[in-house]
Amino acid sequence: MQGLMQDWPLLTHKVLDHAAIYHPDQEIVSRSVEGPIHRQTYADLNRRARKLASACEKHGLKLGDVAGTMAWNGYRHLEIWYGIMGLGAVVHTLNPRLFPEQLTYIIDHAEDKWFFVDLTFVPIMEGIQDKLPSIKNFVVMTDRDHMPDTSLRGALCYEDLLAEGDEDFVWPEFDENTACGMCYTSGTTGNPKGVVYSHRSNVLHAMSTNMADALGFHSTDAVMPVVPMFHANAWSTAFSAPMAGAKMIMPGAMMDGASIYELLDTEQASITLAVPTVWLMLLQYLEQNPEKKLEALKRVVIGGSACPESMMKAFEEDYDVEVIHAWGMTEMSPLGTLGTRKGGMENMSQEDWWPIKLKQGRPPFTVEMRITDDDEKELPRDGKAFGHLVVRGPCISKAYMKGEGGNILDSEGYFDTGDVSTVDEYGFMQITDRSKDVIKSGGEWISSIDLENIAVGHPDVAEAAVIGIEHPKWDERPLLVIVKKDGAEPEGDDILKFMEGKIAKWWMPDDVAFVEEIPHTATGKISKLQLRQQFEDYKLPTA
Amino acid sequence: MQGLMQDWPLLTHKVLDHAAIYHPDQEIVSRSVEGPIHRQTYADLNRRARKLASACEKHGLKLGDVAGTMAWNGYRHLEIWYGIMGLGAVVHTLNPRLFPEQLTYIIDHAEDKWFFVDLTFVPIMEGIQDKLPSIKNFVVMTDRDHMPDTSLRGALCYEDLLAEGDEDFVWPEFDENTACGMCYTSGTTGNPKGVVYSHRSNVLHAMSTNMADALGFHSTDAVMPVVPMFHANAWSTAFSAPMAGAKMIMPGAMMDGASIYELLDTEQASITLAVPTVWLMLLQYLEQNPEKKLEALKRVVIGGSACPESMMKAFEEDYDVEVIHAWGMTEMSPLGTLGTRKGGMENMSQEDWWPIKLKQGRPPFTVEMRITDDDEKELPRDGKAFGHLVVRGPCISKAYMKGEGGNILDSEGYFDTGDVSTVDEYGFMQITDRSKDVIKSGGEWISSIDLENIAVGHPDVAEAAVIGIEHPKWDERPLLVIVKKDGAEPEGDDILKFMEGKIAKWWMPDDVAFVEEIPHTATGKISKLQLRQQFEDYKLPTA
Repeated sequence: MQGLMQDWPLLTHKVLDHAAIYHPDQEIVSRSVEGPIHRQTYADLNRRARKLASACEKHGLKLGDVAGTMAWNGYRHLEIWYGIMGLGAVVHTLNPRLFPEQLTYIIDHAEDKWFFVDLTFVPIMEGIQDKLPSIKNFVVMTDRDHMPDTSLRGALCYEDLLAEGDEDFVWPEFDENTACGMCYTSGTTGNPKGVVYSHRSNVLHAMSTNMADALGFHSTDAVMPVVPMFHANAWSTAFSAPMAGAKMIMPGAMMDGASIYELLDTEQASITLAVPTVWLMLLQYLEQNPEKKLEALKRVVIGGSACPESMMKAFEEDYDVEVIHAWGMTEMSPLGTLGTRKGGMENMSQEDWWPIKLKQGRPPFTVEMRITDDDEKELPRDGKAFGHLVVRGPCISKAYMKGEGGNILDSEGYFDTGDVSTVDEYGFMQITDRSKDVIKSGGEWISSIDLENIAVGHPDVAEAAVIGIEHPKWDERPLLVIVKKDGAEPEGDDILKFMEGKIAKWWMPDDVAFVEEIPHTATGKISKLQLRQQFEDYKLPTA
Repeated sequence: MQGLMQDWPLLTHKVLDHAAIYHPDQEIVSRSVEGPIHRQTYADLNRRARKLASACEKHGLKLGDVAGTMAWNGYRHLEIWYGIMGLGAVVHTLNPRLFPEQLTYIIDHAEDKWFFVDLTFVPIMEGIQDKLPSIKNFVVMTDRDHMPDTSLRGALCYEDLLAEGDEDFVWPEFDENTACGMCYTSGTTGNPKGVVYSHRSNVLHAMSTNMADALGFHSTDAVMPVVPMFHANAWSTAFSAPMAGAKMIMPGAMMDGASIYELLDTEQASITLAVPTVWLMLLQYLEQNPEKKLEALKRVVIGGSACPESMMKAFEEDYDVEVIHAWGMTEMSPLGTLGTRKGGMENMSQEDWWPIKLKQGRPPFTVEMRITDDDEKELPRDGKAFGHLVVRGPCISKAYMKGEGGNILDSEGYFDTGDVSTVDEYGFMQITDRSKDVIKSGGEWISSIDLENIAVGHPDVAEAAVIGIEHPKWDERPLLVIVKKDGAEPEGDDILKFMEGKIAKWWMPDDVAFVEEIPHTATGKISKLQLRQQFEDYKLPTA
């Protein structure tokens, strides 16, 4: 028997409909790329997204077409998301920090037909446009007055294009599984892989993350996503904030401490989201300007990489701002876990709560999560066993664009995150390593991240990385690679001695190597791949 | 192009999976029908729901079968919901307050094959079982010790049945549009009509109501649904509380002020939900026992009928408990609106907020709502225009069981709620009447409810009802029907004089009639249908 409920597909434009009808005067405040602060409302966003959709349709954009964007967080970027998705076309966000050859590979692979570009990034696109024959229309996201003299072929001015559209444009209806967004994962090995979101997945993800124990936006919140829209869907804020009718504050191109503080303060942000690097800059700025306070700010969501304890304590103890530690990945839309207290933890002391809070958190409803061994056998949720972290749910990838990477689900439909983690008895997950970085010694696993975290605690160490080196007896043994602090001259043995007693004896690195610099990926993470290449011919003294 | 996200149907058992894995020790506390307080956890609920499903399947229950329940809010009722729905079968909740002939009509129409009944209601079912040939299995919801001597044919004892099941039972997968719940609307005209929920609609509704500005349950909440599971899905709490991992407190058969207070207090409920009648009893009990406080209680959700201002003020001002005024209907799963502050209202004074709070509230995302005239033309959202309230969304009926009532959607897919209402510039909706009760005078509408609310303000009036009486010139004119207070002897003119100046002149009733009693429906509302029949031959003095 079928239910007799209405057929109402979960489409992204319905989020905007809701915001425009119930929160028409709520503001979207953007630091524009041209400079000034720009203000518009959800009613404006609704009108302008429809105009854009109508104009693009006149110019031939149709259901299933892919439109790339290279843009900061701002009102025009939001208009493009809702306008293009509303047509049944696909918004493909590009990270401007990628190398030109990665960009051309990705744009070509995704077959972008349109490309929307912020003023900032026009030179990047001019430099690679000749290698991008699929792009038929470049649109520079500015008005006539700021339109640059550009070599981009047939470049349209965004505001001129918009002016051709009809604000009463009626959104077409289509299946909720229609693609609406695309984001390639940077991928430390192999080619970048395209994650393809559907309308259903984006709407469900926003509903899931808007539940009270996740992001839980209220209409009275002022949400500032510093995390970029080109980085894993801006953690769903472009959908979840309008769904809740919350004010949005979009920081544009300015991510330094002073600029972020200025917006938080003048726009009275109540919740903000970003990676630790951004918060490091903000906290440094606040330290240098002790008269500045975070009065309106209630919550800060930190993810993208693990939040250091010192940062968490600074926010909570010095500024009375609650930290929500979060974890996710592009393939998960992206939020996978959030660290909010559970029933039974109401009266837990801060001392007991702290080590749990430092973990990555617990999944909201719709995310199924477990850890498994190499044979897909589920491991216990005891906070000690660590295994492959695998996930399942309606907002999680089942395949990559054009089948890249082949079948990516296990026999029970779980996606392997590539992380190694523990899950404790409360359901809180903690990443212990990437599975390709874990060191397999005599059939047992050693966490490279655990070793690195301990090594950086040594006062003379600026940065540490651990990789597995081939070993005739144990398969692999750990090598500790160190960048010394300026002026410091530690010996390898000093550092090893420092680590003794803090880990199991058989986890101890077999050797220490000093380098000038440790290689990083475009997103700022240690590139173990490059490091392994660098130490390809290295022989351990124990071998 | 299709999205590449996982196929993960929204099935109700996934809510329970989530609760059992992430909140295994969270409690479900029930006042059992046998008497004592019963405690179990979500892990227990999960095990027992699987056992029940497994046992029922062995006894022949299969996908698409309908299982009736006549039961209070309690742990076994929850087990039945999750167990039966998990099989792809349909739980059909029956209101025990219905008349026997309504019950037989409904059970026969729905073709219930199984029937689960609480001890309290065994006599009701014994009395009508001969007229219910479709029922193959009666199950009495108790254990062997409390099993009554019953004439119910082939009656099974719930705990004996459960004992036959397997707690490792694996839920089957099926389409998310599969029916899972059924509830007939009492219907003041025509036959009762069956609303059929799907897994998708129940899961989406729970996600929608769990968003922060709606019910927004936290895992640290203790939720007490006094609103029965047989009344419009218990306002989704049977799904939304486990989804959030909140503690559940189930009041069983005892709805009096003392019993409700005892549970609120001993179990430290933080949020509770019921109709105004229940709260009236609680507030009276608290008045009589001034030493009792509502210390743990933070929020009370009031719906089912409009919350009187005095009740709202008593909770907020005397007991410091926030009132959330809500409105919905069986056909809406049921929540349609909730009255929480919006962005821009943060600093609104209590004085300005109060009249808005007394309205029915604003819809959460997934509910589309508007008011229209008789030609389906949308009316303005200005707080003044009133028209047919029509709604659209994935958790709203598109048809009734077996097509009863024919096509129930307008040309744009909206369902007519049968209510007449206004919507103000903030999006807050206020019911002004039922569309069949509104008085159509000279092409204009007069709200019967507005007139009643004013008339009951007269000190000598116990109850008031207004109906339209045929009029040769104006089509209809209002007749005011009054039940006097004990010992009072008002004249009709006294009451009309009292109303003068409070409404437009042409709204004034043309006559006043005094009666001993005003007829009510099974759910306690004024039965305008019966009242109109009673005054069928009435002639107005103005006619």
